[in-house]
Amino acid sequence: MVFRAVVVDVDGTITFSDRSIDCRAVEALRSLDVPVVIATGNVLCFARAVSILLGTTGIVIAENGGVVECGRVEYDTSHVERCEKAFSYLLGHFPVEKLDHYENRKTEIALRRDFDVEKARDILSGFSDIEVVDTGFAVHIKSRKINKATGLTRLSGLMGIDVKDFVAMGDSSNDIEMLEVSGFGVAVGNAHPALKAVADMVTEGEHGAGVAEAVRELKGTGKIK
Amino acid sequence: MVFRAVVVDVDGTITFSDRSIDCRAVEALRSLDVPVVIATGNVLCFARAVSILLGTTGIVIAENGGVVECGRVEYDTSHVERCEKAFSYLLGHFPVEKLDHYENRKTEIALRRDFDVEKARDILSGFSDIEVVDTGFAVHIKSRKINKATGLTRLSGLMGIDVKDFVAMGDSSNDIEMLEVSGFGVAVGNAHPALKAVADMVTEGEHGAGVAEAVRELKGTGKIK
Repeated sequence: MVFRAVVVDVDGTITFSDRSIDCRAVEALRSLDVPVVIATGNVLCFARAVSILLGTTGIVIAENGGVVECGRVEYDTSHVERCEKAFSYLLGHFPVEKLDHYENRKTEIALRRDFDVEKARDILSGFSDIEVVDTGFAVHIKSRKINKATGLTRLSGLMGIDVKDFVAMGDSSNDIEMLEVSGFGVAVGNAHPALKAVADMVTEGEHGAGVAEAVRELKGTGKIK
Repeated sequence: MVFRAVVVDVDGTITFSDRSIDCRAVEALRSLDVPVVIATGNVLCFARAVSILLGTTGIVIAENGGVVECGRVEYDTSHVERCEKAFSYLLGHFPVEKLDHYENRKTEIALRRDFDVEKARDILSGFSDIEVVDTGFAVHIKSRKINKATGLTRLSGLMGIDVKDFVAMGDSSNDIEMLEVSGFGVAVGNAHPALKAVADMVTEGEHGAGVAEAVRELKGTGKIK
């Protein structure tokens, strides 16, 4: 099996835990001949900036799969109203603060990570179609029907590359579905145990060192170019 | 003189000419103890992303000085209507395409760089308060009253650091006023001749190598920490 593309999470995977870019990941991803797709829980504008700065393809997944861009931009806004309802309900129980005051998050809601997420999940347990995801960088109120795997599936259609031809790399629980749907899943050394459990490869190195290690290994075994 | 902060342009200065980040600049800027401010012609969201990825202070200048952020965000929208008028007038003469379809540029207009800029300047010569600036990455229709120097002056007030306590680094003609108003101006080796003409230091190295060279020199001579 020779994989034809890579999809990679941003925060914690190609960055350090303070969100600053790990240049070891930058250099490793630039060494690849195949397209490198950015997949983030952040907004489209951030995903685009990362893609530009990495020097990759400009093909991105944002908002945990709700937004994809490959030539054109596609949004799945069908569940955002439901997210707003859950947000309003949660706000009735304790103060939460929306992020993205100056950006335009379109398909889900992101909150500042300064409250008890377990308690929020309890409060929202009646919203069976909604999940509260803690990426370690923000807390997302999102539809269970949207995740990085649904985004990757949509994007792979636009790219004309099967999802199984992707290597996926990540660190967080919101990367689980993406690793599962891809052809080969890499969890970096600092990844959440639940992500490591579904990965085909768990690197020894953390953050960018893990990405570089996976790229080296996959190139060395001829699994990617 | 010991400088207390650095303000640095993005495209062409800390990036290569394809806009991908030059890790030599990343490492050099991270080695500084003083605040590092991003100053770009791009939108706030992009400036913030660069700041996050650099691991710098989150203090930024966007839209060529029209937008600044330090704790809070301040916009100077007083000239955008006039920019819109100039844009409409230009559009009557030949096709131009606005950038930022998905972002929210608030204080000026940015255009895809695929037309004769000199001809556009001729057409807009009646708009004496408006200038057409080609950064090499986009063409901006902007007020002559806003530039990275006015942005830096506003920001320096918010930061409580005098503009003369800043080292400014850039590569393009839209960095001229910023270098002039700062305490010490650095033009990287690939800079526009007009910027080199106003710089206190012109580096031998280009892009990130130039930034690293300037940081090394300034630290070596005790001018910055």
